Amino acid sequence: MSGYNYLKNAGKVLCIGRNYAAHIAELNNAKPKQPFFFLKPSSSILKQGEGSILIPKGVNVHYEVELALVIGKTLQNLNPETFTDKDAIDAIEGYALSIDLTARNVQDEAKKKGLPWSIGKGFDTFLPISPFIPKSKIPNHYNVELFLDVNGVSRQKDLTSLMIFPIHKILSHMSSIMTLEKGDIILTGTPKGVGSIVPGDKVTAGLAIDGVEIQEGHLQFD
Amino acid sequence: MSGYNYLKNAGKVLCIGRNYAAHIAELNNAKPKQPFFFLKPSSSILKQGEGSILIPKGVNVHYEVELALVIGKTLQNLNPETFTDKDAIDAIEGYALSIDLTARNVQDEAKKKGLPWSIGKGFDTFLPISPFIPKSKIPNHYNVELFLDVNGVSRQKDLTSLMIFPIHKILSHMSSIMTLEKGDIILTGTPKGVGSIVPGDKVTAGLAIDGVEIQEGHLQFD
Ligand SMILES: [Mg+2]
Ligand SMILES: [Mg+2]
Ligand SMILES: [Mg+2]
Repeated sequence: MSGYNYLKNAGKVLCIGRNYAAHIAELNNAKPKQPFFFLKPSSSILKQGEGSILIPKGVNVHYEVELALVIGKTLQNLNPETFTDKDAIDAIEGYALSIDLTARNVQDEAKKKGLPWSIGKGFDTFLPISPFIPKSKIPNHYNVELFLDVNGVSRQKDLTSLMIFPIHKILSHMSSIMTLEKGDIILTGTPKGVGSIVPGDKVTAGLAIDGVEIQEGHLQFD
Repeated sequence: MSGYNYLKNAGKVLCIGRNYAAHIAELNNAKPKQPFFFLKPSSSILKQGEGSILIPKGVNVHYEVELALVIGKTLQNLNPETFTDKDAIDAIEGYALSIDLTARNVQDEAKKKGLPWSIGKGFDTFLPISPFIPKSKIPNHYNVELFLDVNGVSRQKDLTSLMIFPIHKILSHMSSIMTLEKGDIILTGTPKGVGSIVPGDKVTAGLAIDGVEIQEGHLQFD
């Protein structure tokens, strides 16, 4: 599998919220006892080179850089006691670099009113995502540095080792609620440093291992 | 298009909340000024004859019978001032009868905490849906009686003419947020009478025009 072929099988996109402590603190959110998650529509996917991020009128768009998992096989009702990190790696087909763009003012309003997040998370172009990254490029998915720059200024830069809920716990929890299918995409949460972008901003994001960037994961939008 | 082929193109499933006044009243919800909506995952789809509705442990499952639209072409940034009911009919490929099953206690908790609805709406089997209903079978989509019985007792039975936001307004609003694509499924909200089901309950649902049931839309699960 290479390039963007993997998206043809993306039956659903699930995103973990609040999985990095410093990001929870910066938005004054409560720390969840269990991982919680939401869906993004496939119509929000923006491939590298396909166009620009669209900022809807009246919307405060926040970037959130995240490691994405591409599911490799059906996962259903996994036992959280026995499903290990090694099992998770076996169940993952590969990775991608993603930006969970969020209409923060729309989401804040929804949270206040107890309404769904789908609108605030689901505008067109709100899911910039990289080509497929083979598993061989990421020997340890907790030793990945995620970074995002706006207009050349570093805004997010943290290691995936800071995740609160590890990947195998995310997968076993999700699988107890909805079956994960081959091709599904899982976004694993964003580290601290989220903030707004406005039309004309140049957004660059990527991931690196021991200081060396993985080229497949490079995103740039302006 | 016949049977369940239409689901192969279902890129996303969008559901309108609170679109019938008497249902808003029965749950003590606020009446929305604009239509709001949420996503259900394709993994929650349950076809007629494919198996039973699963009631997860500790979950209070509510039925919500709804008219579903199958989108026939790309709809993007429609002008709400000029997009008419006739345009909506042109844009619809056909219909289906659906049940928007909802983990009411999970949803209530999410609403209280300002969390997403995806979990409460997205368990496996939480979207029973009928085979495709051709447009020719529904000459007027506001003259459709939706009904749902539990163990032979009538629980929901109302006309689609009671919708607060008409179908063309739903489509133009949604299209301003996310592009609607051929094959997408839109659930248009539930009338009053929602309530719980427990394992072993027999759920029958369907739709009728002038007292005559449309056979393609008949659902029965036990
Ligand atoms: Mg996020
Ligand atoms: Mg599927
Ligand atoms: Mg509903």
